[in-house]
Amino acid sequence: MKIKYTLLKQDKNSNARYGTLKTNYGTYETPMFMPVGTLANVKTLTTDELKDMNSAVILANTYHLWLRPSEEVIAHAGGLHAFMNYDGPILTDSGGFQVFSLAKNKKKDIVEEGVHFKSHLDGRKLLLTPELSIQIQNKLDSDIAMSFDECPPASADYTYMENSVKRTLRWAKRGKDAHQNERQSLFGIVQGGVFEDLRRYSALETVKLDFDGYSIGGVANDGESKEDMYHAIDYSIPYLPKDKPRYLMGVGEPVDILEGIERGIDMFDCVLPTRIARHGNAFTKNGRMNLKNLKFKEDFTPIEEDCDCYTCKHYTKAYIRHLVVSGETLGGRLLSIHNIRFLIRLTEEAREAIKKDNFVNFKEKFIEQYTK
Amino acid sequence: MKIKYTLLKQDKNSNARYGTLKTNYGTYETPMFMPVGTLANVKTLTTDELKDMNSAVILANTYHLWLRPSEEVIAHAGGLHAFMNYDGPILTDSGGFQVFSLAKNKKKDIVEEGVHFKSHLDGRKLLLTPELSIQIQNKLDSDIAMSFDECPPASADYTYMENSVKRTLRWAKRGKDAHQNERQSLFGIVQGGVFEDLRRYSALETVKLDFDGYSIGGVANDGESKEDMYHAIDYSIPYLPKDKPRYLMGVGEPVDILEGIERGIDMFDCVLPTRIARHGNAFTKNGRMNLKNLKFKEDFTPIEEDCDCYTCKHYTKAYIRHLVVSGETLGGRLLSIHNIRFLIRLTEEAREAIKKDNFVNFKEKFIEQYTK
Repeated sequence: MKIKYTLLKQDKNSNARYGTLKTNYGTYETPMFMPVGTLANVKTLTTDELKDMNSAVILANTYHLWLRPSEEVIAHAGGLHAFMNYDGPILTDSGGFQVFSLAKNKKKDIVEEGVHFKSHLDGRKLLLTPELSIQIQNKLDSDIAMSFDECPPASADYTYMENSVKRTLRWAKRGKDAHQNERQSLFGIVQGGVFEDLRRYSALETVKLDFDGYSIGGVANDGESKEDMYHAIDYSIPYLPKDKPRYLMGVGEPVDILEGIERGIDMFDCVLPTRIARHGNAFTKNGRMNLKNLKFKEDFTPIEEDCDCYTCKHYTKAYIRHLVVSGETLGGRLLSIHNIRFLIRLTEEAREAIKKDNFVNFKEKFIEQYTK
Repeated sequence: MKIKYTLLKQDKNSNARYGTLKTNYGTYETPMFMPVGTLANVKTLTTDELKDMNSAVILANTYHLWLRPSEEVIAHAGGLHAFMNYDGPILTDSGGFQVFSLAKNKKKDIVEEGVHFKSHLDGRKLLLTPELSIQIQNKLDSDIAMSFDECPPASADYTYMENSVKRTLRWAKRGKDAHQNERQSLFGIVQGGVFEDLRRYSALETVKLDFDGYSIGGVANDGESKEDMYHAIDYSIPYLPKDKPRYLMGVGEPVDILEGIERGIDMFDCVLPTRIARHGNAFTKNGRMNLKNLKFKEDFTPIEEDCDCYTCKHYTKAYIRHLVVSGETLGGRLLSIHNIRFLIRLTEEAREAIKKDNFVNFKEKFIEQYTK
């Protein structure tokens, strides 16, 4: 079945909203943070561990899975859920972002049909089109598929961005027409960069195509400022229907998640919690903590005393520091568990605050402590 | 308290024996396989996962922990058990093997006092002595400490080996005199290379020093043949007391474990299950399986249908192959779980066979299938 969003509570003092998302694999509360499993695994973690963190939707990546192991292999496994052993909802991105970001320093050719580019694995020439992206996602059998969009750099000028927004709309229509999986929902993506009228135009026209949900893209590219991101949300949100979920793509800094929630976003994803974990860093209420720091050498307390994650219940900063400094993979794994749980818990607390019309206060207090 | 070995059943058709090892952290059956946690973690795994595999004693490495994070840090944590969150028994090796193997291609100077060598991390000049090795192990507070021994190469001639065996005996005595941890047992190590009379001499003289257990060393160096290893056991075992555990150091190939058990060995350790896992390989009853093999691309069955490990209960060969081929750490983690459980289960099955006086038959059938 298609997902169904239900708005349960609108915060009195902001656009923040509390709701539920009914999926093929259960009903989950929003706002939610979605861990990223690019290659059909959230790096170093099992899906049982994700469920222990109270995960809901998780992501997988169309571009990467298309190249390896291929959508055919995953279809023969019975779809992504069976392949990666996850009985929760899965969202696949369209591959659009990867085509543009992985091919960043390489030649790529954007034409009306799609994007010609070279595989980041072996340099093989490839063409990804809106139809092919949807066909791959149909076969992956995720619960939510994303439209194939162009992701221009933050520095793109108005003329480029206007043409790009129009092409993305034509691609969205083509993808929707090609979509053929009744149990899979399809989201449209609002683009338009930093230009208010282009964001409005993109939102209005995308909504006319009637998707199951809407995401705001082009906010997590290199070179965008936080203000650009917040403006992009502000410019787009007013034109999105209240009865559909809104997804801010690629955003996972705690402060940005709260800024997004305040503006009416329901869903977030980001590789940040696992990426900073691999570099020895942890999210904490007092900002990021670098476990490599010498001061943790004999700190036999958890990363956060009041954290309910597996890592904080079983391991100390001194031990994790030892693992990280020694290059032991278990260090990054333990930090990934903490960091993902940190973001999921942040959204859980945000939901409680919204229910009490206390979100703005909650957000300000969190940011004050986090950035102090 | 010191460990206590109890011999419960002597196989009628071989030297294989079934017994129990009482430790500070429970009583466990032998023969046993001991997973190796060099840097106070079995690579990629939590201690809860090790317990799920029915682990008993696990290893940690004196040399590595001395350099990082230091025995002082671990002592301040409350010892190795608290530091790494393992409430099962821990054995620490002496550092002797590492001094010789890691410094293999570097200058080292073996003198009566100990071994002068350079750190493999930063080239710092270090001196490890029998007393220092024991002092470090006392502070690590493992349940079983090992004597500091010289580990000559397999190619050493008789004269070198004779002098080395005598030095190792003097070092064993010095280490025993320096040992000061009442809850920690201390094992002596039999050396002597491929020479029958030196193995006998080493065993007889080591036993005179009255250790809590005995290990057979110098069997897992580079360049030793399997026959050399089996002979080394045969030459040593007759002189070891029946009421003390016998530990074959560094051996973890399934066939070698069974050959060791047949000859009267109670304890085994090896990095093999985690090392081959990192390279995409699994132990199976039909020999090693390379998951990178193209034939597993769409094999949606577990590594072994009848395996009770977490990996085989949740994941398919096709998925693990995808992870391994894509360089995802989770692949090595899932294979490590399977491989360690495989060796632990092998010893469990060996124990059942010994109880029924059926060990030789069990061994022959296993080897026939494994090497076919």
